[in-house]
Amino acid sequence: MVNKVKAFGEVMMKLNVPGYTKLEQANRLDLSFSGTGVNVLAAMSRFGHSASIITALPDNSVGDAAAAYLRSLGIATDDIQHTGAYMGMYFLENGFDRRASVVTYSNRKESSFCQSSAADYPLEKLLQDTAMLHFCGIGLAVSEQTRELLLTVAKMAKKAGVTVVFDCNYREKLWLSQEEQAKATYEAMLAHTDICFMTERDAISILGMETAATDQKEQLQDLLPSVAKQFGIQTIAGTIRQSQNEKSSIQGFLLQQDRLVFSKPQAFRILERIGGGDGFASGILHGLLSDYSLEDTVEFAAASGALAHMLPGDSPRSSEKEVWRLVTRSEIEMER
Amino acid sequence: MVNKVKAFGEVMMKLNVPGYTKLEQANRLDLSFSGTGVNVLAAMSRFGHSASIITALPDNSVGDAAAAYLRSLGIATDDIQHTGAYMGMYFLENGFDRRASVVTYSNRKESSFCQSSAADYPLEKLLQDTAMLHFCGIGLAVSEQTRELLLTVAKMAKKAGVTVVFDCNYREKLWLSQEEQAKATYEAMLAHTDICFMTERDAISILGMETAATDQKEQLQDLLPSVAKQFGIQTIAGTIRQSQNEKSSIQGFLLQQDRLVFSKPQAFRILERIGGGDGFASGILHGLLSDYSLEDTVEFAAASGALAHMLPGDSPRSSEKEVWRLVTRSEIEMER
Amino acid sequence: MVNKVKAFGEVMMKLNVPGYTKLEQANRLDLSFSGTGVNVLAAMSRFGHSASIITALPDNSVGDAAAAYLRSLGIATDDIQHTGAYMGMYFLENGFDRRASVVTYSNRKESSFCQSSAADYPLEKLLQDTAMLHFCGIGLAVSEQTRELLLTVAKMAKKAGVTVVFDCNYREKLWLSQEEQAKATYEAMLAHTDICFMTERDAISILGMETAATDQKEQLQDLLPSVAKQFGIQTIAGTIRQSQNEKSSIQGFLLQQDRLVFSKPQAFRILERIGGGDGFASGILHGLLSDYSLEDTVEFAAASGALAHMLPGDSPRSSEKEVWRLVTRSEIEMER
Amino acid sequence: MVNKVKAFGEVMMKLNVPGYTKLEQANRLDLSFSGTGVNVLAAMSRFGHSASIITALPDNSVGDAAAAYLRSLGIATDDIQHTGAYMGMYFLENGFDRRASVVTYSNRKESSFCQSSAADYPLEKLLQDTAMLHFCGIGLAVSEQTRELLLTVAKMAKKAGVTVVFDCNYREKLWLSQEEQAKATYEAMLAHTDICFMTERDAISILGMETAATDQKEQLQDLLPSVAKQFGIQTIAGTIRQSQNEKSSIQGFLLQQDRLVFSKPQAFRILERIGGGDGFASGILHGLLSDYSLEDTVEFAAASGALAHMLPGDSPRSSEKEVWRLVTRSEIEMER
Amino acid sequence: MVNKVKAFGEVMMKLNVPGYTKLEQANRLDLSFSGTGVNVLAAMSRFGHSASIITALPDNSVGDAAAAYLRSLGIATDDIQHTGAYMGMYFLENGFDRRASVVTYSNRKESSFCQSSAADYPLEKLLQDTAMLHFCGIGLAVSEQTRELLLTVAKMAKKAGVTVVFDCNYREKLWLSQEEQAKATYEAMLAHTDICFMTERDAISILGMETAATDQKEQLQDLLPSVAKQFGIQTIAGTIRQSQNEKSSIQGFLLQQDRLVFSKPQAFRILERIGGGDGFASGILHGLLSDYSLEDTVEFAAASGALAHMLPGDSPRSSEKEVWRLVTRSEIEMER
Amino acid sequence: MVNKVKAFGEVMMKLNVPGYTKLEQANRLDLSFSGTGVNVLAAMSRFGHSASIITALPDNSVGDAAAAYLRSLGIATDDIQHTGAYMGMYFLENGFDRRASVVTYSNRKESSFCQSSAADYPLEKLLQDTAMLHFCGIGLAVSEQTRELLLTVAKMAKKAGVTVVFDCNYREKLWLSQEEQAKATYEAMLAHTDICFMTERDAISILGMETAATDQKEQLQDLLPSVAKQFGIQTIAGTIRQSQNEKSSIQGFLLQQDRLVFSKPQAFRILERIGGGDGFASGILHGLLSDYSLEDTVEFAAASGALAHMLPGDSPRSSEKEVWRLVTRSEIEMER
Repeated sequence: MVNKVKAFGEVMMKLNVPGYTKLEQANRLDLSFSGTGVNVLAAMSRFGHSASIITALPDNSVGDAAAAYLRSLGIATDDIQHTGAYMGMYFLENGFDRRASVVTYSNRKESSFCQSSAADYPLEKLLQDTAMLHFCGIGLAVSEQTRELLLTVAKMAKKAGVTVVFDCNYREKLWLSQEEQAKATYEAMLAHTDICFMTERDAISILGMETAATDQKEQLQDLLPSVAKQFGIQTIAGTIRQSQNEKSSIQGFLLQQDRLVFSKPQAFRILERIGGGDGFASGILHGLLSDYSLEDTVEFAAASGALAHMLPGDSPRSSEKEVWRLVTRSEIEMER
Repeated sequence: MVNKVKAFGEVMMKLNVPGYTKLEQANRLDLSFSGTGVNVLAAMSRFGHSASIITALPDNSVGDAAAAYLRSLGIATDDIQHTGAYMGMYFLENGFDRRASVVTYSNRKESSFCQSSAADYPLEKLLQDTAMLHFCGIGLAVSEQTRELLLTVAKMAKKAGVTVVFDCNYREKLWLSQEEQAKATYEAMLAHTDICFMTERDAISILGMETAATDQKEQLQDLLPSVAKQFGIQTIAGTIRQSQNEKSSIQGFLLQQDRLVFSKPQAFRILERIGGGDGFASGILHGLLSDYSLEDTVEFAAASGALAHMLPGDSPRSSEKEVWRLVTRSEIEMER
Repeated sequence: MVNKVKAFGEVMMKLNVPGYTKLEQANRLDLSFSGTGVNVLAAMSRFGHSASIITALPDNSVGDAAAAYLRSLGIATDDIQHTGAYMGMYFLENGFDRRASVVTYSNRKESSFCQSSAADYPLEKLLQDTAMLHFCGIGLAVSEQTRELLLTVAKMAKKAGVTVVFDCNYREKLWLSQEEQAKATYEAMLAHTDICFMTERDAISILGMETAATDQKEQLQDLLPSVAKQFGIQTIAGTIRQSQNEKSSIQGFLLQQDRLVFSKPQAFRILERIGGGDGFASGILHGLLSDYSLEDTVEFAAASGALAHMLPGDSPRSSEKEVWRLVTRSEIEMER
Repeated sequence: MVNKVKAFGEVMMKLNVPGYTKLEQANRLDLSFSGTGVNVLAAMSRFGHSASIITALPDNSVGDAAAAYLRSLGIATDDIQHTGAYMGMYFLENGFDRRASVVTYSNRKESSFCQSSAADYPLEKLLQDTAMLHFCGIGLAVSEQTRELLLTVAKMAKKAGVTVVFDCNYREKLWLSQEEQAKATYEAMLAHTDICFMTERDAISILGMETAATDQKEQLQDLLPSVAKQFGIQTIAGTIRQSQNEKSSIQGFLLQQDRLVFSKPQAFRILERIGGGDGFASGILHGLLSDYSLEDTVEFAAASGALAHMLPGDSPRSSEKEVWRLVTRSEIEMER
Repeated sequence: MVNKVKAFGEVMMKLNVPGYTKLEQANRLDLSFSGTGVNVLAAMSRFGHSASIITALPDNSVGDAAAAYLRSLGIATDDIQHTGAYMGMYFLENGFDRRASVVTYSNRKESSFCQSSAADYPLEKLLQDTAMLHFCGIGLAVSEQTRELLLTVAKMAKKAGVTVVFDCNYREKLWLSQEEQAKATYEAMLAHTDICFMTERDAISILGMETAATDQKEQLQDLLPSVAKQFGIQTIAGTIRQSQNEKSSIQGFLLQQDRLVFSKPQAFRILERIGGGDGFASGILHGLLSDYSLEDTVEFAAASGALAHMLPGDSPRSSEKEVWRLVTRSEIEMER
Repeated sequence: MVNKVKAFGEVMMKLNVPGYTKLEQANRLDLSFSGTGVNVLAAMSRFGHSASIITALPDNSVGDAAAAYLRSLGIATDDIQHTGAYMGMYFLENGFDRRASVVTYSNRKESSFCQSSAADYPLEKLLQDTAMLHFCGIGLAVSEQTRELLLTVAKMAKKAGVTVVFDCNYREKLWLSQEEQAKATYEAMLAHTDICFMTERDAISILGMETAATDQKEQLQDLLPSVAKQFGIQTIAGTIRQSQNEKSSIQGFLLQQDRLVFSKPQAFRILERIGGGDGFASGILHGLLSDYSLEDTVEFAAASGALAHMLPGDSPRSSEKEVWRLVTRSEIEMER
């Protein structure tokens, strides 16, 4: 039987200035659609799972375009509700070397999704055939309304026996001088969570946990089991990232029942900044659904995350076979 | 001395689906900036006048891009205020033959301009060097706030001795079941107006005027002098449009001191739907500022409007010489 | 309940030379995927039906790209079998005015679909949830193998209680000096058919029927009921096409139980040559599935066909609302 | 044996603003290379003749790019001399409907070709294997130096037994108030000419000939035999052009030994303004070299000219087969 | 009061082969406009200064396009004179790694600017509102006429109390076997200069100065004060550049009243080769006009130069804020 | 006298996904034509030799496009035979860093060339004016038919006194479990060969030769003279490649009459993966035809190979001057 994986979250329109110019130098923009849930589902679809997004889109050309794009990614669009008037959108100017990228939002809070409430979704029906439901923490920061929305849906999902997946995706900037509220919100969310993506830094900055360890891996070993215990979370996973000159690397970790395993580091040059974490997360979910060993799961996930950084576009599109190939090959073998 | 012509109105971002496809078929969008005031000023700049727009734009990459675009059109951007967070924007899917174009707005009321109030503009200073100030009636329909904004600024301009130009640009759809308010608002605006762009249909539908005439030209002769008298307007101008098969035509009219003159009709195929009226309006303003005869003014304006439909992009870019050439030539003379 | 509409047929890669140049002038090609079944299903999906294609594609990047494209059209790809090595493909150089288009095929008979046999498809399972199954006559002309394939699947579908739809799409050129075989093949296919798309010319040239009538509508009235009777077909539909200068028109006809109704002619300029017949066919199928009256069905279908010619891309993408709008509007109403 | 056809003339760089915008709206230009001789040779190559251009190009990247382009057209580049520093170039802004195209030259007289003299070409060797040599009259108007150059080379070619082809291509604008010199120059050129492309208007305006006839065909019948006689020209050919709404037509004429034959008119919509005359001319040359009858020659030439207007790019690229197909088909027959 | 900064120099059309191909592989060129003065003014405009260019352009489409481009950069075009027929232009083929870029000029000496003389400019009026006037040394090498032009204008500017800025931009290749004349010309120019951009190498190669020091910084310390003294120059600035593997760096220096200060080195990968020096120069000018300390000025300038190398397009477009951000941040901080 | 260099081999259509995306993300493909023989001839043409390809192409638009492309490269197309129906083609998805490129073939064995036999070529005539004929080993692996084809033609060429050039280009993957046949085939080919491109690895893996040496250069010294002797080959050449981080290098070697010389290593970043070996091979051939010393030949060849990797497009396009410049320059010298 196919595992039905869903995500509850926003789909945004991404208007990307081509190349490395500023917006003021451009007379055309590359159009795509993105979102944490979108990215995870796109990858899950490539790995052979049935994927569907639960979200809200306007009932107009813009919403139609988003839906067609999602379908091309392999994401079913039957669960999408048509409410509200706008899509959230952002303009992206790619940075280069030490010149930073610039993101400019439009309709951040006025989007169909951010203006929706739980009542807009026939959740009972939508959750019926759902094995896993994915949430992203960024949505918790947008407004009181979105916090309410996500927590309500997560609670209902948990209650309905759906495996709740939560990617902390904590953005300090968005919670400035709201640290208290951040902590409360994340704690509430974690209480509904079965599988969580986070790092030791999240445990420290959001949850206020403490550790005497200074080494990152020791901190993870020290903190994550406590988090799992405190909130009743079965699985916690995340990545250690490093960057030197033009090369970056991802090393995955995965905790289950007090066992913390690490992947080997996957090194690569970054072509696409966005979606690496989602590539990793989908790798973990795929491993869990496929009954891989913990070791295989985390290796697969790290390679999946690395590949996402080597392919243009936010959404990972590598097949299971391509991911395994990266795990096993040590260098580029090109031939004509 | 150079005549300083300004416009008070919104600058919108236009995201145009290339060719004739639907948005869902596109992976890139053509980016430009548009607006009635923008279009009129672009043309005035080509005709040798000093042009500047008074508007509000967000202080970010998007606002910077708009400003750079306006400057390339020959419009000074020193009078622009940086307030608010968003630009108004719209997606345009070009229709083809009997398949209609589709316009989808984003941030209609949440834009920097529509959220601004008169107090956001140092009007005393901005109006000091202004010979003419242009307003567009579409802004009157957006919200109570924009109505207030436009009427206030028009009143101040009139008081400051600036020639107030008002293009009715009445859109029935936007005033559905608000016809009363439309009438009151337009009447208030006309009371501040020196030069008005309108048709006999505006006089009838907005102002509720009546005429026994059935021929369009007779209706104009019947109604416009009354409008001019009632509101103390010096100049009224507008166009009669016809369309047959692939050919359209513009015939201009111009009323001053009870004298109503007509241009010859200018026939053309439409390449660009938007900006023809603005091309016409700028032709009239240029004629008036250049002390053309009424006849020359209206001929020039009709040709200016026709050329705007034969050049891609909302904003007219034809030089005075090019406009006069269309007035005098009867057919295409191409040679290698 | 959603009606599950499927098609059994080939998906081809279309490599279109942009604009109107020859292939030798181009250094890039526009890539899309096409096919009669694809086009009909794309439209059905827009009309709210569940659509899925049964076909064979190679298990490689090329097949993946085709599948992603189909999904973006709203066509489910779960029924696709991965066999064979190649996709059928063709290069299209657009003609202009009296200069003809040029189509150059590659891998015509070597494609995964044309090399497949009925045994490659788990038909019992695939037909289980199918309300309608669409076939295109072009496939009958490719080879003995494809003839066998289509006839076998149509027979099984009929037997399984699926409504068999057959679009004759007769191409004289492909059957040169095989007229006998064409007749036999089409007769065999029609024997399995419930809904058939054809014209009076098909009845005459393929089936060898005769009529004394000279007027096209009289010929239809004379011949189609006989065809329906002879082969036990419930519904026959098709179009009368005319073309003058730059304007073309489609007039639809529809026969059911000896009642032959005609739509009004829909006139338009052609932007896209391909897919108009498929737009019409899908309109008929939608009308039948929606219990429209015969008159409404054929009006809807003619407008659907006309719109397909006014939108770039082989596959129709107009919504039910857009099609009805064309039926009811008499001219272009554009406004800003 | 293959007929070696050559042209002596300038190759210009064409920088075409894409679409219909003004140069000021563009941030990229389409690059190609063009010239009367280039166009004629490109067509001759398509018709199966060996074609080579004698010209001068700078020995740099720009000259290399021109040569690669010429070769892709099927024109040999071995006869090209590398002298001078610049290519002649022009910017082309496409007009639309009644808005005229704009051509802006750069380096008109400073180009390698226009700065060259006969001594720069090893003519004895270059003419050795030449059956026909083509000249264009535009070059006569550029400067005293180019007049000298063309006349010298034409004289040498004639003397070497090469068939001299001369296309009058008279541009009144370029000879303003130099009509005397124009007459003398053209007379000198015609004295070396074997095959001439001209119209009755050339005979009247350039050569000052007179006729009592008012009908164009009668004028041709009246004037051309005199021209042929006076200058010892064997063959004269040209076109009668008409234009109505969107449709244009070319009717060819051809005079040999006092026999004047006309083709049927070929009607078409214009896609490409440039190169139609060259398409016609090459058709005539091909007919002559292939020993077609006069009637076939002129029919072929008219169709060749018409096709050149229906294909983008200055240079004709239709094959002999495609040209004959236009002669024999009466309407577009498209099928899938 | 806004500081009015102007430049006197040539605007060139840049026709850039996209990507890394040779011109012969391209069928389109990227169009932009460039020049040392243009680049400096574009940056000054971004830093909040009023910027205007004094130059000559042809009065045609090409000149119009250049002007529109300049305005989009924030440079006023009112001071531009319309004389002459051509713009100077160059084709740029981008090199890659060890394969060199190729620049091919067209109309080098025949351009409107290079053919103009001081009398073509209403200098008295143009200099009236000018705080600073920028000159580039490349123009001194083109011809006797341009030398005369620049020296005359610089002299008049100095006399009119304008701060004369001179960027040596010495190109050895252009002065081959004219070293004597180079020395004389540069000395004449330096005599009019208030702010000079140069390096120790310029002092040695052009001016023939000598130093016993071998370290670059010691050479600067040794030579620059002498130059300042000898020619009465208030401010001298320049950069020390280094390059290793893929990383380059700029370190700025600034001399005033015998005080020589250095910035920290700014390291970066080069995206755009051109305009870095102009980014640095504009940073210095901005610091001086803003009464920054010498230290702040040179830090700001080095970051401004570095950013220019990290943004496509010759002309710097970074805001004051963006430049300061680079000064203070040590590494890329990207977040989603 | 010009040396006529020819190649006998396949021309393939290359459909390249732009940038680094997967095929499924693309809606356009970059079109070019490629092949080992094509690449070698393109380079030879740049080096001043007369180059012509002997191959088979379909007589349709696709074949015409290939021929035009070849001509633009400077390769004569007169020797091409028109047989068969298809071109071989492949889709290329560019890899990035550790993500591998993906090549998907279409019509591998069904192409005009691979379906042709020696009898399809008028070889006697085609070889008459041929100095050198180039073969590529990849063709030996496609099918029994192509093996037969290449061996027959090579034999005839050798007999006709043509210098036979053979590039082993051994692809292990294509000969899996056919090692015996590979050995026999290569031995047969080598017996006809005058100039061979191979490495020590080819001698070991294909020919089964053995060496006690472990150092690569020693292995070459040990094995190549034996190969030369055994098969009567006059010249053997090849490259030693290394790669570290982003930098690769080519070091050439060349054996003649037992003298083995090495070039210095040429280091570069790879822009284009394909064609480096062909750049090297053409450098060797040019050196031999130009009577360079062995040392100069191998230096020239290594630089030619390196440049091919720094220019986009499979086919080398560097001039002799550009190659020599790379040999002599030690670093990038860019100037404005």
